[in-house]
Amino acid sequence: MTVAAEEIRIEPAVVGDTPVILELIRELAQFERLIDQVTATEAALREQLFGKRPGAEVIMARIGTEVAGFALFFHNFSTFLAKPGLYLEDLYVRQKFRGHGCGEALLRRLAQIAVERDCGRFEWAVLDWNQRAVDFYKALGAVPMDEWTTYRVAGEAMVKLARQV
Amino acid sequence: MTVAAEEIRIEPAVVGDTPVILELIRELAQFERLIDQVTATEAALREQLFGKRPGAEVIMARIGTEVAGFALFFHNFSTFLAKPGLYLEDLYVRQKFRGHGCGEALLRRLAQIAVERDCGRFEWAVLDWNQRAVDFYKALGAVPMDEWTTYRVAGEAMVKLARQV
Repeated sequence: MTVAAEEIRIEPAVVGDTPVILELIRELAQFERLIDQVTATEAALREQLFGKRPGAEVIMARIGTEVAGFALFFHNFSTFLAKPGLYLEDLYVRQKFRGHGCGEALLRRLAQIAVERDCGRFEWAVLDWNQRAVDFYKALGAVPMDEWTTYRVAGEAMVKLARQV
Repeated sequence: MTVAAEEIRIEPAVVGDTPVILELIRELAQFERLIDQVTATEAALREQLFGKRPGAEVIMARIGTEVAGFALFFHNFSTFLAKPGLYLEDLYVRQKFRGHGCGEALLRRLAQIAVERDCGRFEWAVLDWNQRAVDFYKALGAVPMDEWTTYRVAGEAMVKLARQV
């Protein structure tokens, strides 16, 4: 398949995209070897993305009538800058559409949104073993925050921590 | 100084706390050896925390009439869960109030907020060389996300990425 860069359209997701977004999330989780962690349902995703108080936003990469990929993002916050930042939670391009610039087009659009909204920074997390992604992001000027590690509590551990002793 | 745990009060910040929050942000940045990155002003911080569209929330640790520390947080989002998460951006306890449980009290309150708001997870980033913090968080049940590294573009690199080629 040959796809010219100009055929890729990056557009905000609409509510009708919910089923395909969930499909893509599941494909991404499979690739990241984390499919057992996916409990998202279509109803919950629709409410979170298109409900009264959206928790995140999505942009789609489309080629013709097909969905090639998506990016899901939200705003985080920098105390040092006293400004919001843009945080990319998930970026995914379907296997058969890879190598045509969809990922780069999605990232560039996100950087545009970050600039338009006066964000102080644009960030995302990468799995260390995903060398192809690491090389791609570095080539685009991204800098690894090597000194930092994210810590997480969830499930029972979170409930336990919430309990006063 | 001896401080009983029951004397620590954890309360939502009010707009009058803005100057002391900025002071604490600057103290934290100094500790993290990142003070040169702080460009936040009182006006910008007030707007971001207490304006029409807040970008983050703050809880304060108070002992008597003094401010002992603070935590600043916002909601992130898990696509796998289709649920918001709670992200702790900054946690800081002033030198002279350390060792009395303020940090733990702030963390427990955040975990409570996460549970109350039906968040799927509670996360924060730690500087790898801050062994005291690492030990403290692990003892409270937090798990390091060792496989992931955060990448960032900011400033000129972000503007350049935003430019279509």
